[in-house]
Amino acid sequence: MLGRTYERENCSAARALEVAGERWSLLMLRDAMFRGRRRFGEFTSGLGMATNVAAARLERFVAEGLMEPRPQPGQPERHEYTLTDKGFDFATTLVALTAWGDKWSAPKGPPVTYLHQACGQPVVAELRCARCAQVVGPREILARPGPGSRQGPSTQ
Amino acid sequence: MLGRTYERENCSAARALEVAGERWSLLMLRDAMFRGRRRFGEFTSGLGMATNVAAARLERFVAEGLMEPRPQPGQPERHEYTLTDKGFDFATTLVALTAWGDKWSAPKGPPVTYLHQACGQPVVAELRCARCAQVVGPREILARPGPGSRQGPSTQ
Repeated sequence: MLGRTYERENCSAARALEVAGERWSLLMLRDAMFRGRRRFGEFTSGLGMATNVAAARLERFVAEGLMEPRPQPGQPERHEYTLTDKGFDFATTLVALTAWGDKWSAPKGPPVTYLHQACGQPVVAELRCARCAQVVGPREILARPGPGSRQGPSTQ
Repeated sequence: MLGRTYERENCSAARALEVAGERWSLLMLRDAMFRGRRRFGEFTSGLGMATNVAAARLERFVAEGLMEPRPQPGQPERHEYTLTDKGFDFATTLVALTAWGDKWSAPKGPPVTYLHQACGQPVVAELRCARCAQVVGPREILARPGPGSRQGPSTQ
């Protein structure tokens, strides 16, 4: 088990990064989610990453409940790794990161497009107001202490 | 300038992680975006991070165009750092990461809530279909090569 990098942080973004913010982690989740990769060798050869790092990441994903190991069909002494709901829940983050890169760092156009299976049209990651349903820009957001704030909801 | 970690990857998520995927990077962007932090000492004391790491991150953000340095009012020999549009564009990723942590790793409830300034109601990060406008779940998404794919749009 790795040490906690952002231990002082009482922040849900920091907690998400604790389990998926190390090098290669989010790209391994991307490959599991959108490229159908399940096996150790698929992750390492697809990403060109070191085997010890891949093994550590998969072990962490299992420990944190993001992936489940299962015996490989036909080779039950080996495992494959499938995403749980908790792992799949990084989809919004992955699509949001992709949208950033498509906009700011893809001079030849998006390398990959994410499509809604039912319509074949692009899926977009958006910030919306839960009440008025408007799309909200980054400068229209206020951060306020929530119920899990150490200081309680009255101070920041 | 740092080396490129994900050099082999032709993927916009990987490119976003190249500029904001190192330790502390996304939390520094969060602090600049939602906590009004601009000064070197505000980032280091707020996050409890090493000064050499903070300096390297800020330098990278400026080099990549995510932040702009400006003379501090009253202390023009020192800089403060303000987010550009390119930096603010990580808002969706940050709110999506926060939502993951709120759901899976916040037993006492969300430490911070992000609110729509105009209504005071929560802002949510969602995946939606650009055509049918439905909220799309992670298992309803297809990844397909886009115009910037090395292989072209006909293969994956």
